This record gives sequence, C-alpha cells and structure tokens, in this order.
Amino acid sequence: MPLPPPMPRLIVEPAVRRALEEDLGRAGDITTDYVVPEATRAQARIAARQAGVVSGLDAARSAFRLVDPDLMIGVERHDGDVVSPGDTICHLDGKARSILTGERVALNFMGHMSGIATATRTMAQLIAHARARVTCTRKTTPGLRAFEKHAVRCGGGANHRFGLDDGLLIKDNHIAVAGGIVAAIEAARAQAGHMVKIECEVDTLEQLAQALDAGVEAVLLDNMPPATLAQAVAMNAGRATLEASGGINADTIVGVAESGVDLISVGWLTHSAPSLDLGLDIDFGD
Amino acid sequence: MPLPPPMPRLIVEPAVRRALEEDLGRAGDITTDYVVPEATRAQARIAARQAGVVSGLDAARSAFRLVDPDLMIGVERHDGDVVSPGDTICHLDGKARSILTGERVALNFMGHMSGIATATRTMAQLIAHARARVTCTRKTTPGLRAFEKHAVRCGGGANHRFGLDDGLLIKDNHIAVAGGIVAAIEAARAQAGHMVKIECEVDTLEQLAQALDAGVEAVLLDNMPPATLAQAVAMNAGRATLEASGGINADTIVGVAESGVDLISVGWLTHSAPSLDLGLDIDFGD
Amino acid sequence: MPLPPPMPRLIVEPAVRRALEEDLGRAGDITTDYVVPEATRAQARIAARQAGVVSGLDAARSAFRLVDPDLMIGVERHDGDVVSPGDTICHLDGKARSILTGERVALNFMGHMSGIATATRTMAQLIAHARARVTCTRKTTPGLRAFEKHAVRCGGGANHRFGLDDGLLIKDNHIAVAGGIVAAIEAARAQAGHMVKIECEVDTLEQLAQALDAGVEAVLLDNMPPATLAQAVAMNAGRATLEASGGINADTIVGVAESGVDLISVGWLTHSAPSLDLGLDIDFGD
Amino acid sequence: MPLPPPMPRLIVEPAVRRALEEDLGRAGDITTDYVVPEATRAQARIAARQAGVVSGLDAARSAFRLVDPDLMIGVERHDGDVVSPGDTICHLDGKARSILTGERVALNFMGHMSGIATATRTMAQLIAHARARVTCTRKTTPGLRAFEKHAVRCGGGANHRFGLDDGLLIKDNHIAVAGGIVAAIEAARAQAGHMVKIECEVDTLEQLAQALDAGVEAVLLDNMPPATLAQAVAMNAGRATLEASGGINADTIVGVAESGVDLISVGWLTHSAPSLDLGLDIDFGD
Amino acid sequence: MPLPPPMPRLIVEPAVRRALEEDLGRAGDITTDYVVPEATRAQARIAARQAGVVSGLDAARSAFRLVDPDLMIGVERHDGDVVSPGDTICHLDGKARSILTGERVALNFMGHMSGIATATRTMAQLIAHARARVTCTRKTTPGLRAFEKHAVRCGGGANHRFGLDDGLLIKDNHIAVAGGIVAAIEAARAQAGHMVKIECEVDTLEQLAQALDAGVEAVLLDNMPPATLAQAVAMNAGRATLEASGGINADTIVGVAESGVDLISVGWLTHSAPSLDLGLDIDFGD
Amino acid sequence: MPLPPPMPRLIVEPAVRRALEEDLGRAGDITTDYVVPEATRAQARIAARQAGVVSGLDAARSAFRLVDPDLMIGVERHDGDVVSPGDTICHLDGKARSILTGERVALNFMGHMSGIATATRTMAQLIAHARARVTCTRKTTPGLRAFEKHAVRCGGGANHRFGLDDGLLIKDNHIAVAGGIVAAIEAARAQAGHMVKIECEVDTLEQLAQALDAGVEAVLLDNMPPATLAQAVAMNAGRATLEASGGINADTIVGVAESGVDLISVGWLTHSAPSLDLGLDIDFGD
Repeated sequence: MPLPPPMPRLIVEPAVRRALEEDLGRAGDITTDYVVPEATRAQARIAARQAGVVSGLDAARSAFRLVDPDLMIGVERHDGDVVSPGDTICHLDGKARSILTGERVALNFMGHMSGIATATRTMAQLIAHARARVTCTRKTTPGLRAFEKHAVRCGGGANHRFGLDDGLLIKDNHIAVAGGIVAAIEAARAQAGHMVKIECEVDTLEQLAQALDAGVEAVLLDNMPPATLAQAVAMNAGRATLEASGGINADTIVGVAESGVDLISVGWLTHSAPSLDLGLDIDFGD
Repeated sequence: MPLPPPMPRLIVEPAVRRALEEDLGRAGDITTDYVVPEATRAQARIAARQAGVVSGLDAARSAFRLVDPDLMIGVERHDGDVVSPGDTICHLDGKARSILTGERVALNFMGHMSGIATATRTMAQLIAHARARVTCTRKTTPGLRAFEKHAVRCGGGANHRFGLDDGLLIKDNHIAVAGGIVAAIEAARAQAGHMVKIECEVDTLEQLAQALDAGVEAVLLDNMPPATLAQAVAMNAGRATLEASGGINADTIVGVAESGVDLISVGWLTHSAPSLDLGLDIDFGD
Repeated sequence: MPLPPPMPRLIVEPAVRRALEEDLGRAGDITTDYVVPEATRAQARIAARQAGVVSGLDAARSAFRLVDPDLMIGVERHDGDVVSPGDTICHLDGKARSILTGERVALNFMGHMSGIATATRTMAQLIAHARARVTCTRKTTPGLRAFEKHAVRCGGGANHRFGLDDGLLIKDNHIAVAGGIVAAIEAARAQAGHMVKIECEVDTLEQLAQALDAGVEAVLLDNMPPATLAQAVAMNAGRATLEASGGINADTIVGVAESGVDLISVGWLTHSAPSLDLGLDIDFGD
Repeated sequence: MPLPPPMPRLIVEPAVRRALEEDLGRAGDITTDYVVPEATRAQARIAARQAGVVSGLDAARSAFRLVDPDLMIGVERHDGDVVSPGDTICHLDGKARSILTGERVALNFMGHMSGIATATRTMAQLIAHARARVTCTRKTTPGLRAFEKHAVRCGGGANHRFGLDDGLLIKDNHIAVAGGIVAAIEAARAQAGHMVKIECEVDTLEQLAQALDAGVEAVLLDNMPPATLAQAVAMNAGRATLEASGGINADTIVGVAESGVDLISVGWLTHSAPSLDLGLDIDFGD
Repeated sequence: MPLPPPMPRLIVEPAVRRALEEDLGRAGDITTDYVVPEATRAQARIAARQAGVVSGLDAARSAFRLVDPDLMIGVERHDGDVVSPGDTICHLDGKARSILTGERVALNFMGHMSGIATATRTMAQLIAHARARVTCTRKTTPGLRAFEKHAVRCGGGANHRFGLDDGLLIKDNHIAVAGGIVAAIEAARAQAGHMVKIECEVDTLEQLAQALDAGVEAVLLDNMPPATLAQAVAMNAGRATLEASGGINADTIVGVAESGVDLISVGWLTHSAPSLDLGLDIDFGD
Repeated sequence: MPLPPPMPRLIVEPAVRRALEEDLGRAGDITTDYVVPEATRAQARIAARQAGVVSGLDAARSAFRLVDPDLMIGVERHDGDVVSPGDTICHLDGKARSILTGERVALNFMGHMSGIATATRTMAQLIAHARARVTCTRKTTPGLRAFEKHAVRCGGGANHRFGLDDGLLIKDNHIAVAGGIVAAIEAARAQAGHMVKIECEVDTLEQLAQALDAGVEAVLLDNMPPATLAQAVAMNAGRATLEASGGINADTIVGVAESGVDLISVGWLTHSAPSLDLGLDIDFGD
C-alpha cells in the first residue's frame, strides 16, 4: 500500500490550534518569554531517539507556523519513513522563543502519531508474507481520529471506517435487536446509499453463511481461532472482504494472518500504542 | 492524597461534544438508525474487563447526555475506585439507539483515562513506602490535557503544571540562552507574579547548589542515578521541592523513590499508558 | 425506501443556532420585544400553503427550543408526510414573543427542506414503475448538506456521497491526470479502505467496459441518451451499480429510468428546487 | 444603483471554511489524493454555461485560498457582470489537487449566488421603466443571509433588513397583540434608537392612513392589487417609503411596479431562485 | 423611555460561557474544589454596596446556570431598578461550590453593566428637564457591545448604532474622501437599503445646512458650544434628529441639553464608567 | 519590573476577531464601503490625546491585519512607553477603507488597555519609594482578562492569578465552610500540585498567625489599616508574601505601602480605570 497523502491543512490546523491554546493558557509561555531575549535566534532539529516510523510532520509544521509564521522548517524525513535513533527528521531556524514555545505541542503530535505508525509497521511486518492487512478501529483517542488514521497508514496499515456515518458495521447488539442477521442486513440495505458498504459481525460459521447469503460486502469474524478463520475463508470463496477481530496481538497475529483473511483489525494500535521517543535539540546562534 | 474533585462540566462538555461530532460525521450513526427501531428501549452496563482504576465517568456521562438528555445513568463506581474484571461501573437505561450511538465515545474517554489512572496507581503503589509522589508532565495527548491530569489524580498521582502559563520551568535550553542558572532564575523572578512558582532543571549537583542559592521553589533533577539523587536530597535540606525526572519506569522507580526525592515525574503515564479494557453490555427490553 | 431516521440533535443544533444568531444579530428581535408584552401567550400552527412533502421538523423544533426551552411543540405530521394546502404540520404553545422570534428561522429551514423533499418526490413518482431511484449530488447549498440529504430521503430519494471523504468518485479530470480509467481505478483501489466504494464516471461504452473490468462498485454514466444507457445496462449485466447523470429533468427522467439504470442523479434537487410555501398562523390568548 | 462593494473577508471566510469542512469531512478529498500525483499542476477556468449575472467571486476565491494559499486566481469578470454561455469568469493556476478539491465548494457558492443575482436582474429589468426597485426579504437560506443579500445587490436589487435587529417591521401579528397599528407604532417608537427605521405592514388603505399618521418611515402593502397600490401611492404623497409585497412574480411584477410604489419585495429571489449553471474546465500541464 | 426587554439568551450565553472558560482555565476552581465539600449547600445574596442602577441580571443568571443548572436563583430587583447600599438584588440557593465558582464572573458582568447603567442615569437625570436623551457610541469594550448597549438602556439612555452595518454615520474622514458632504450623502443614499438611516457629522452650521438640504435623517454636531447648538436647532426646524457630541461630561451636559438638541452622545458611558460595587454574601447551611 | 513580553498572537487574535465581527455585523462597514472608493489610499497615525502609558499595540495591529493583511503598520512607541498629548504611537499606510474599518476596534482595545496601564503607573509612582508593588485582581472585564493583565504589567504593576485554576486563594467563605484557616489550608495543601501556591485571606492578626504557622506562601490582609498592616509585616518576618487589599485608592495607597507590605491589590485598575484618549488622524493620498 502506498504512503498516504498529506493530511489536509483544513483538518490539521484546528486541532493543532486547540492543542496550542491548551498549552499556552491565558498567559502564554512565561518561562521562555521571561528568560529568553526576544532577539535571540536559534537552530534546532527534531530527531528520533528510538527506531520507528515517522508520522505527524504536518501537525508539527502547523504547530510551529501557528506560533510564528516566520519560522523556517526544513524537512529531512517524511511521514512513513523509517528512522533510526539519532536520525534528524526536520530542521528549524528562527526565533529561539518560537522554537521553545512550539516544541512540546509539535512533539506531542509527532510522538503520538509516530508511535502508532511504528506499532502498525511492527504488526504489518509480522504478516508481510500473508495476504492480510492490518487495519484500525474506531477505538481512537477522542478528537484525534483523523490524525491516528493517518498514522496507521504511515505504518503500512489500512483504514477502517472514519466514523459512524461512512460505513455500516452491524454488530451483535444490532443483530439482537433486529431479530437476526438477515433482517438486520435487509434493514440496512433498504436505507443505505449506493456508496455505503455493509459489514456484519459474526460469531459463528452459521452466521457467516447467513451474512454471505444476504450479500454483505464485508464480514467481521469476531474472536475466531485461526482454524475457524480458515474455514471461514474457504466458505467465503472470495465473495466478501473478511476481517478478523478480537484481542489480536503480536503473539497471535501471524496465526490469524495465515488463515487467509483479508484484514486484521487491531484496536490496540490507536488506543494503546506507546509514543515514539523524539527530541528537539537546539543550537543558539552565536 | 484525596481523590480529585469532579471535572467541571464546562471543561468536559466541549471536548466530549467534539469527539461525538468526530464520530457522527454528517450522517450520524447510520447502522443503528437503520437497524434499530426508534422505540426499542434497552438497559446496559459498562463493566471492567481488566483490573484497574476507574477514571472518566463525567466524560462518559456527558457523552450519553449529549446524545440523548433522557437517557438514565446510574453510577456504581466512582472515579478513583479500583475495579476487578467483571465489575459494573455504571448502568444505562433508555432508548437503545442512544446507548449504541454514545457507546464508543464514552468508552474511548473512559478507557483512555482509566488506563492512565491504572498506570499511575501501579507506579504509586511501587513507591508507597517512600516519601515520593508520582507526577505527570506536559507530554500529554493533544486536546486532552485536563482529562489526563484528572486521570493521574484518580490513580493517586500528583499534577505538575497544566500548561506553559501556570508555572515556570526553566530547562537546559533556557539556561543556555540566559547565560547560566542564576541569570535565568533572576530574569524569571523579576517578572513572575507572586502566585507563580519557579522550578529549575539541573543536571549536576553544582547546578543544584546554584539553583538553591537562587531560591527556586522546586528543582527538576534530570537523569540522575539514585545515589546522586540522595546527595541532592541531602544538599537540599528541605529547602526546595525535588523532582526526579528522565526515563523513569517501573523497573527503576523504587530506587529513585528511596533516594528521598519529593516527586518522580513520568511522562509515560500520559503519552503511552495503554487503555484499560472496558465494555458495554446491553440488554434489550422485552 | 423507508423514511429516514431523524437527524441527530448534535448535527441539527449547531446549524440552527448559527441561523438564529444570523437573524438575531446583536440586538435581537427588536420589533417583537418592543411591541409584544413579555407576558402575552399565544398558540400557533405551522401549516402548508402548497401541496408537498414535509421535511425539517427537527430543525424547526430546534429553532423554537433554542429561542425558548419552555415553548410547547406538538407535531401533527412527520418528515416524509405528504401534505395538502391548509394541512397543519405542528402546533406551538407558549410565549408570543418566542413564537414570533423563532418563526422565520424555523420556516426558512422547513420551507427549504420541504421544497427539496417535494421536488424529489415529484421526480420519484414519475419513475415509480422503473427500477431506478432518484439520488442527489454534492451540488448542495453551502453549510446545509446534511439537511438537504435528509430532505432528499424524505422525498423518497436516495443519498449519494455526503462529502469528498466517504466514497471515491473518479471523474473525467481524475482520469485525464491518471492516464486512463484503469490506472485511475488501480491507484484508488490501492489506497482506499475496505469500507470505501469506488465509482467511476464514463462517457462511452468503451470506458464502461474498462471500468467494469477494473471492478468498480458503481459507474456514473455521463450524459448518455436512453438508448446508450440501455446498452450500458446490458453490458453491465448486474455487476456494478449504474448511475445516469447529466442535466436530467422532469421531461427526460422517464426515458432515462426506462433504460434500466439503478440510479438517476439530479443536482437540481438540492441546488435549485424551490422552497415549499409554509406559513405560521398565530392565535393570541384571550 | 451602483454595484455593491466586495463582501468583507471576515464575513466570507468563516462560512466558506465551514462549507469546506463539510465537504472534506475527516479524510479529505480521497479521490483526488489517491489518483492525482501531488506534483501535477494544472490550469483551469470557471465559465458560465448559462447566461446570467456573476456573484460570489469572493467566496470562490476564499474557497481556493483556504485549500491552498499558493493557488493563483485571475479574475476576468466581477460580481455584477453579465455573462453569456461560454464566458470565462476566472482563471486558476496551481496544483491540480488544490483545484479539484476546492472546485465544488467554490461552484456551490457561485452558482447559488449567481442564480439569485440573475433572478434579481430578470425582475429588475422587467420594471426598469418604473420607479420601483426589487428588494429581498428575510426568507433566506439559513447561514447564507449576507451572501444572498450581496447577490441581490449584484443583480441590481436593493436590500431589506439583514436581520431582526437592524430595523423594525411591525407585522399583522404584532399589530394584533399591541391592540392596533397606532399602539404598535407608538410602542416601537418609544424604544427604538434614532438610527432605526420603522416599517409597518398594512392590509387596507384605512390601516395605511393610520400608519402614515403615526409617522412610520416605510409601509409594507400586503397583497394589494395594482389599483389599490396606486391609491396607496396617492394617499402617501411621498411621505413614507412604500413596499409592495405578497407573492409577486414575473407575471405580476410589471403591474405592481406601475402603481408607483417604491419597492417590491420578492421572497422567491432568495428562497427559490435556481442556481446558475457554471462549470470548471481544467487543463493539465504537460 | 421604557426599560429595555431582557437580552436574548442566545446572545447572552456565549459571552458568559467564554468568561467562565477564561476564569476556570484548564483545572477549574481549585480553591473551592479542594476546600469546600461537594455536599455543602449554601444560600447567598447579591447585594448593592453602593447606590446605583441594576443591570446584567440575565448575565449573572446565565453564569450560575452554566456552572450548575440546579442552582436556584430568585430575583428581587430587575434590570433598571434603582438600588441603595445594602439592597438585595437576588438570592441563590444550592451547592456552595457552585455559588463560589460562579460568583466572580456573575459579579464582573453585573458590576460592569450596573456601572454603565448608573452613569447613564446620572447623566439622564441632569437633563431630565430638557428634550435631549443621552445616547451611547461605538466606543465600547471589545466583545461586550450588546451588554453595554443594554446597560445604557437600563440607565434610561438611548442606543446609537450597534455596529458598522446597521446605520450610516458619515464622518469627517468620509467627507474628506468623498469630496464634500453632499457627494458623500448622495453616494450613501444611492446604495443604502430603505431601512437604513443616514447620519452625517458636521463641524459648522454651513455643513449643517448642506446636510439638511441633502436630506439626512440625523446630524452629529461635533464639538459645538451650546450657543451654536441652539442655532443648529433653529436651523434644523425639526427636520433631522440632532445629536450633540464631543467630550461632553457631567459639567457640560446641562448647557448642551438646553440648546434643544435631540440626543447627546457620551462615549464615556461605555468606555470609562466605573464599575458599580456589588457583593455576594453567603450563608452556609447548618 | 521589566516591561512584559508581547502577548502571544494565538491569544490576541481570537478576541480581536470577535470584536471585529461584533462591529462589522452581517453587512460590514457600509458607510465606508459606500462613500470611500476602493482605490483610495491613505496614511494615518494613532496619537495620544492625553498623557499616559501605551498598551495594546499587538491588539491594534491584529485588528488592522485581520481587516486587511496588506496594510502597513509602523510602530513608533511600544507597550509600556509613556506618551504626552500629541505623540504619535504608530503609523498606518494602505487602503483608506481598511484604515477606517479597523479604526474603532483598534482604538477600543488600545484605549481600554492604555487606560489600565496609565492608572497602574499612577498608582505605582505614588509608592515608588516603598517596597510594595501594585497588583491586579480577578475583577476584570469579561473576555479580556489576558489583555488587562498585560496592561497592568505595561503600567509597572504585577499580575495576580489569571484565573481560578492557577493559584489557590482561600477566602473568608472558604474558611467558614472548611472550619477554620488551618483546616482550609491543610485541605488545599493535600491536593494542590507542587507548582501551585496557596494564599489565604485573613481579617485579623490572629488569623495571620494561624496562616503563617500553616505555611502558606502568601497572605491577603483584608481591609486592615496601615498600623495593623505594619504589625502584620513585623509578625511575618519575611516568611510569606503579604498582600494588602480592600478598597485601596490613590488617597490611601501611600499609607498602605509604607506599612512594608509586598503587594497592594487594586481591583479598580481593571474594573473601573477610565479609557485613555487616543485618536486616529488620517491623510488621504493626493
């Protein structure tokens, strides 16, 4: 899968602005403003302190530009690039105050997103020999979904729905209320626009058969062991996209992938992947 | 340290509203709206699927209330309570659609916050025999700082600064520009209001001596081994609050705490603690 | 197609609030406030002055409730209902000031949305004997897309994409840049998540053949006469959803529908359908 | 009446930004981003496909600039200019992606506004031989009032109130509550600032006499036939501005205008005028 | 002039919410939350500590309700009422925390607005024997114009324009550019809607003659001594509304008023009137 | 105390934008737009008409730049500079329309802020011979706290808390509920982060003794006469920061300062200081 396109400026900027407002509060960066002379200039670099995958450069750039439109930012690595400890990701050149004030918000975005990208890549590489792709879920950090979806793509993963409105995912609770899988799928089909896909969660192969007969585009196979997944793949015969789901981790993902499913969704990528350790090193002009 | 007070409604609600808007998009929860009849009522409970510390009930309540002000929410556990797998945290009673639509945002907040509270408590318990308290940093998830600071308190930790404006933390880069620790502290002191404390980062005991002589209220001891920390504690003689910092984790925290420092800051709590596994179980009315 | 579910409150309310702020300005409804005593109560009804289809009751209710949460609103007709001139749609009971102040914004939403619903129903009835469904486009009024999509559903139409992000529609310009239909579809397929459908615009049957071979889920047949559309239907043999598009109006829609296509998109529904004439009649308490 | 001044940037930009956010959703223009290479440049022109009056260039410019500040926009026609089918309105030059992503929002604003301007001009030309001017009402599309008022001016019409707060319009319901026209006008006069005009709706010549005696600045003559309007004009003898209102359309406007009234208000202009057909044609660089 | 109607909730609430967010910051009212038990209830009253005119009760109510919708508020005095030191304005009953947290924002609004109302009343009473009314200007505190205009009305003053868009005020600079008073008024008249009044600033009686001949609705007589104002009144002969302006204060206002002008504008009312001293006294439940 | 650093752009701009939106309304500056040709250019200067201290240049610059990014602004005086009547503060060069449209908002910010700075300096100079510094309170104008705190610094004053969350100030009501000073301080200490200072209000020297024993960082001495304040200073012996408070004005401040306290808080500075008289003089290009 190719690297994702840059995130749109109109999506990045409002979230970055909120993060800066959260950090600046009412009085701004009083430490820097009181201690660093306004005229002092500096050069800095953001570097990896841990091996991983870069993600979030647009957010970092946006943070520094919102603090100071005159700050120069030179990029050495791009979203999706693999970095080793010590590798420089980007350079900054401008007012020392601006660099110090924007630093934490920029790093908070990049560390969080690069952590997700790195975790995704780790998972993706474990199953590189199989057909399956790693995908994310809606178990994301509130307010950051677009950023986290982008990070998953940077790590080589695929994106699931972005929200409740851009795809139908019929879960066990929906099925229970609707009176069965077929009834639920029919109710959904009757109302969904033609650009909206329907995915249905199933717990058993019997349910899978029903869902496939009802013509869903995708099936979420919930908590099935690899052997059952393999049976599901055989039963499906290429009709629907098959997604394995349910507490899959680095220990279990290879077995799941080798069942032949198309997708493996891992909520952990967005709700629990640790941040990647990045740092900003500064050189003050002489 | 007592449990924290509830988060103010005026702080909680805008962030929860944004998270709901992010999830609902333009068309809303089409799966639920197409499959679940409007009249169907349900009861549900949010339960722990993992042992941990609860945090985020106000955010969850806000999520369900913003979706449907008529939904009834009954709380069984409170922020800061320890739960075991299977324990019910709260009950919901109302329209099935409302419960299903609000579920993910509510759980995303509670899972994230409870994960931080749980991680904090784990750290705090490791050093319960020592004077030191665990504290957080500004390495938080963009847009969620107040939520994460609250979660740290729920886990028994203490809060550091909420932002760049409510405390002075003079770091190595500030010192480098200002021309030394004393100059930096004096510049800060000359401008800071009388309600603002000054903390200074030091790398060596020599710097500590300077900072103490300059009269700072707190000192961040960066990356010092326990033996050096103990020397710092002795040198300080109770004058400033001493905070140990720098890559401290569960393996190293006990040694750090036993040095006698007052605080141990752990960025990992807010940037990398995994989410706590919580689930929503639903019973549809008959 | 069943009537659409109600629009989510979290989507309706911000747009209605903005419309009220636009109407109230800085000083509010000075005519009403200066002329109508605060204590005067009134009853009112919103009625159709023209035959049509109702849409926008949630927006109207939201307008009155935002002006005055104590105003009582009793609904007689629902979104999607057909009304004749004189039919009462809803009743209002409360402060006369609140009714008069909310009236115009409520009617502006309902008139606009009911106009779209009525236009859609007119189109839909013309082709009720055919397989084809009427659908809308992204040619909507800025800021009101979700409202207009809902109105199309109220009139019996189907919804196309809600935005640029919830479906891929490869148009002639995309094809020109990508170097042909097949290349464009492959580039899209390589990056799109599994819940995202791909639709491709074609001008000729040759292009249709290419698009079908490339496996798109839907094809937009641009400006083809009915006879060519019928050939397209035959060539498709049920593989992709076929959408006829391009300046289709009440005079031409029947011929288009009888070609056997699945969908007929009509931009006119949302960018040019006239408002439905509705009125608010008021009775002041004695 | 001269052409209107450009709309203020501070008024245009927030509405255009909301329209772009509505279209981009969470993931942005995925079709363009997946299919069009980032480096591809293009030239494009927005052209009329129908005869009419241009309006909305500032909104279109704002849309493209918010998507990409580096896009070059060259204007050939201005708001208020009459165009024939095929006439170029403006040129664009820059990244192909930016042009394609901003296209629909830009055209939605311009098509909507130009449609209103065109409809206004059509009406205005029918009565060019008379004293009367065409004017708009508060029956506008929610959220777009300033844009629609500007479009009416581009078509040669005059603007009525912008909202409930910048002029007093005493309607039949106000009169009913106040206990008559004179009482209503006196209550209004007693409270209105000296920069606020008072207009009063009347249904009969008797009411007109009362209103004129009470000294209103303007009178809305509701649903009167041309002969009665002519009597009203005579009775007024130049004292108040006279506005004819009530379901006036292209068939009836000439008769109304020839009665000698000053203004003819037509709600249809803003709530029902069809969009003007405009298109964007693109040339990709070689 | 009667007392003004209450400010619309939709106008009051956003500004009050912003003021609360400004005061609560990220952590909320930590003093109250740490020191006052959540269960403690209290009764309180807001009382005048200085004689004056009450204004801002809606803002105060909004502040307390946004902090805690369950707080009971009982009003004893209304906007526009005259109070003596010690008079109770309103009662509060509910959670002690809520009262303490909302107190400062509520008092900041009421003190500021009551100060303006009191200053206005003082001016108005000085000239109660004359025809002239005191009016305000656009020299208001940024973000609070609607609140300050309301306060002026509470003190018995009249409102001038609310902004640049709801009335034309042609000043010396406009005249200079337009090439004279007549040209400026004609340019304005040619474009202004029929509900918009035109006022023109003049420095001399010659200019006044020109403005009156050009038919303006109001004239601002800038910095004229009472004798010249009296000549202006005579020259005007009731045609236009005459407004005296220019550094008028309590010492000079009587002479100005006795010249016979209609209005006296005093920028000081909104940009410099001191706050009225109000206090909140609390009784904790036993 | 050195002059304060510039206010952060991210804090200034949203408030200035709101003020401009408040002034422009829906139709913008119609006087200027109708009377001044778009091509007319002008030069202007903002000058003092009264002696005082400048504050608010960043807000003024922001106002003009938001109206027109191409307007050139040249600064002659800076925030904190003392000016005499007639002194030029800054120059403007650009479109005449832009200067006239931005003028009032720019002056409203600068006049308000310079008024506070001037009042602060007047107070500060009265007590220049004493140790005490003038400080502000939370009795600020809603929505403008950061601007007013900055203005106090420009006048040579010190800043108190910015809000309820960045410092603990235990007042009489808190003490009453908590059951005494010691209990209140202990409750606060138990929960406050290590960067948060605690100040306690006392009415008597007995309370002061308690507060000092409990180890507070600062004490607010409420309404004490100078002789009692001097006793408090002696009792304190340099332990806590001592702040005198309670209706202190220009007549009483010297006596208070000579008692030896560290700070004197004056609510009047921000809630009642009169605006500084500034004007904008314009020269139109020839």
